[in-house]
Amino acid sequence: MATARIPLLGVTMRVKNACRAGQRTLSGTAHAAKIFDPKEPPGPSMKTEVPGPRSKELLANLDAIQNTGGVYFFVDFERSQGNYIVDADGNVMLDLYTQISSIPIGYNHPRLIRAVQNPANLASFVNRPALGTYPPSDWVTRLQSALLSVAPPGLKQVQTMMCGACSVEHSQKAAFIRYMARQRGGKPPTKEEQDSALINAAPGCPPLSILSFKNAFHGRTMGALACSHTKWLHKLDFPAPDWPIAPFPMLKYPLEDFKAENKKEEESCLAQVQEIIEKYNKAGKPVAGIIVEPAQAEGGDNFATGHFFVGLQKIAKEFNSALMIDEVQTGCGATGKFWAHEHFNLPEAPDIVIFSKKMMSGGFFYKDAFRPAEPFRIFNTWVGDPTKIILLGEVVKVIKEENLLDNVQKTGEYMMKGLKQLEKTSNGFVSRVRGLGSYGSIDFPDADKRDKVIHQLKQQGVNCGACGYKGLRFRPMLTLQKHHVDILLDRLNSVVKSMMK
Amino acid sequence: MATARIPLLGVTMRVKNACRAGQRTLSGTAHAAKIFDPKEPPGPSMKTEVPGPRSKELLANLDAIQNTGGVYFFVDFERSQGNYIVDADGNVMLDLYTQISSIPIGYNHPRLIRAVQNPANLASFVNRPALGTYPPSDWVTRLQSALLSVAPPGLKQVQTMMCGACSVEHSQKAAFIRYMARQRGGKPPTKEEQDSALINAAPGCPPLSILSFKNAFHGRTMGALACSHTKWLHKLDFPAPDWPIAPFPMLKYPLEDFKAENKKEEESCLAQVQEIIEKYNKAGKPVAGIIVEPAQAEGGDNFATGHFFVGLQKIAKEFNSALMIDEVQTGCGATGKFWAHEHFNLPEAPDIVIFSKKMMSGGFFYKDAFRPAEPFRIFNTWVGDPTKIILLGEVVKVIKEENLLDNVQKTGEYMMKGLKQLEKTSNGFVSRVRGLGSYGSIDFPDADKRDKVIHQLKQQGVNCGACGYKGLRFRPMLTLQKHHVDILLDRLNSVVKSMMK
Repeated sequence: MATARIPLLGVTMRVKNACRAGQRTLSGTAHAAKIFDPKEPPGPSMKTEVPGPRSKELLANLDAIQNTGGVYFFVDFERSQGNYIVDADGNVMLDLYTQISSIPIGYNHPRLIRAVQNPANLASFVNRPALGTYPPSDWVTRLQSALLSVAPPGLKQVQTMMCGACSVEHSQKAAFIRYMARQRGGKPPTKEEQDSALINAAPGCPPLSILSFKNAFHGRTMGALACSHTKWLHKLDFPAPDWPIAPFPMLKYPLEDFKAENKKEEESCLAQVQEIIEKYNKAGKPVAGIIVEPAQAEGGDNFATGHFFVGLQKIAKEFNSALMIDEVQTGCGATGKFWAHEHFNLPEAPDIVIFSKKMMSGGFFYKDAFRPAEPFRIFNTWVGDPTKIILLGEVVKVIKEENLLDNVQKTGEYMMKGLKQLEKTSNGFVSRVRGLGSYGSIDFPDADKRDKVIHQLKQQGVNCGACGYKGLRFRPMLTLQKHHVDILLDRLNSVVKSMMK
Repeated sequence: MATARIPLLGVTMRVKNACRAGQRTLSGTAHAAKIFDPKEPPGPSMKTEVPGPRSKELLANLDAIQNTGGVYFFVDFERSQGNYIVDADGNVMLDLYTQISSIPIGYNHPRLIRAVQNPANLASFVNRPALGTYPPSDWVTRLQSALLSVAPPGLKQVQTMMCGACSVEHSQKAAFIRYMARQRGGKPPTKEEQDSALINAAPGCPPLSILSFKNAFHGRTMGALACSHTKWLHKLDFPAPDWPIAPFPMLKYPLEDFKAENKKEEESCLAQVQEIIEKYNKAGKPVAGIIVEPAQAEGGDNFATGHFFVGLQKIAKEFNSALMIDEVQTGCGATGKFWAHEHFNLPEAPDIVIFSKKMMSGGFFYKDAFRPAEPFRIFNTWVGDPTKIILLGEVVKVIKEENLLDNVQKTGEYMMKGLKQLEKTSNGFVSRVRGLGSYGSIDFPDADKRDKVIHQLKQQGVNCGACGYKGLRFRPMLTLQKHHVDILLDRLNSVVKSMMK
């Protein structure tokens, strides 16, 4: 069995204070945040093409067991460090995709290593509790320090779950429960409701609906998938309920040039949301919830302004429909605020805020009114995993101690400035530079060119992901700094220039 | 922070080779299996009522954050050991419910402790991969040794998932994909199918269905919940598709007295399955899959014979409907075979076998024909968790090395014999003794009496769970031995006698 090659704190590193190669600063300003230096490699270093021979060999083995069409390359997680991912062939890449946006503070962060090695945490890693029935003695304090300390302003109830999709599913159930409780005016369910529920029939299983948006993505289980509208591969062949779908604003860039037009676009979308809800309510399929990403991710990194979200909250309240903000990809600081919806200055908290990915655990925060009166309504065997909350506790501490939200804002500004500069000189090859914090995207003329850029960037040591039909998304860790951005911009400029020829 | 109190290998134990108190053997035969001696407590020992003052205090704190109606007591997982659970008040109970049937080889098993502490596994615990896109280099060998080595005979494809419900959801999708691929006769989907899928409409989202059974339970997300029919609390207020529901055999006990009657019952259920599928197929809601538990658990521990399941497979094949066996609660050795459906002597493998709970990771095995042709069809960010597969790898090794399936069969026989003896003397208070291996149940006259028995058993140091409307289920670990059964029978006899007065 392989011995550990993880660089532990205090242990001599293979690469030690090496000069940071491949860096060309856009600005000379030193960066203020005191971020733990993870002793990262000095920069990307490539030994083979990506995927390399070892990855291809492993891929063939895995392909005997399951479809592997989604696999990019195999990873040597022991050697990956900070912002750098190391593949099975020893190629060292700057990682701006971070396990589909789910690594918060870098690979092998010493605080996470210590949390796993801490004997006081051992029982949690060894014995998995059924949290809803037999929670561990330290569960309440874990929830308080890891989750409630970063709860969206105004929300005090929280439910842990396993992943993003089941968090969406159970938050939909919370919205349905709340809607029907209000319909019943506090009365208990009738015998007829109880009995019909068991056979999937009304009135126990009423034809309620959740409104979602075009190009939205909320997950791949039936209820979550009914609200997802990105690629046919995700949806084809699967039965789906008739739930309403509204247009999401498609803003024009640069924003400062299209202020009036974009506002009109948002107003138009809001008017259609209102109209669609009225239509579904009248048709006997009441809209119990509106689910929305603060920034559509999988659907193409489509951003809307606070104006739109304030309007949406107003409509939700008017129709007693829950406003459900899906922060699975935007939460945990990715946009420079802990929750992306904090950018919107909503008059009050959303009803439900869903999380997963960087938060390590799935789950959702919710208003008191959305707390079910009875047990076992929002429930399953595990309802989450305490080991992920232990890790999240460390992540949250690091974010606070190292002021990483501030870092994301500053690094994000620097990145956007560089991307806009690239756009100006790209003669239309790069377009729609957009983002919040270091969470952002650029578009290319078509999917084929975009895919080639992503492939070329990998060969040059920068790992990025696709987004929508022709977008490339940046999903760095919160620890990304200016010198990393310089590497990205250098490689991106070079790839774009080579493809413009 | 608390120091670890986990008894590590080689460390002196608080309780060392203590005499096994509270044991009264039903038979004098020594037990043959060489099961690791976890240095368990000598028997239950109670300090307070359950839940005790500390549990109640913690419950009040947790109740500020979420509904806690499902919580029985808080657990000191550090002090729990082997078959014994220790609560927050220091009460030591024999655990026959095992975190809702999800602890395979006992609390703080030294092999699991070593796996967590093994430096070679550290990177897996610290860095969570997106397994479908960037799997770790050791992923294939992990899958092979932990999962494929225990694959149900005839199945060679496997998909990991997060939990039982999402495993059910994605296996339903596999059934839908297979059904439509056959409908298309190998042709690619049309543009109309691709486009309509994005807006939840036919033909892209066809009105396919999954047949499930009365009293079945498969999970709590929309697609899984549509196949669950146990308690109204699980279903009320949630929209559900019109999917067919067939009766599951309700066998009479003792089986040997009702052979003809039970066979007739199974035949009748099979005839109704056939009729219902014909009806739904004609109505334009084709039945793409039949999902069934080898033994209904949550719905009341309802068992059917191999005759029924062989018949079900025949019907599934006739209608090109996938036979989906949900082994979430029965799998991983609970019934004395690794998979409960191995008891049935099916002519060929089921199309899909779903697992979770004791398997630590969710997922499903499937026939080659159910492997999607395209990537991203069965997919999400994490698609499972390698740390659970690491633990499962150890569990599987221990099951093989210690011959635990054999132990489950022997202990199960011993338990059933004792329960039947109790039934005989209980004057109808205990009825329907049933089970496979040590996975079994007994019924009481009504829910109220059943709940009182469970409460009293807890006070006497035996933790059990409810099941259906008036059942009590035994879900021990695979390491349960005769001397544990003696403790159960002693306490159960005493509680039953006190309540019969």
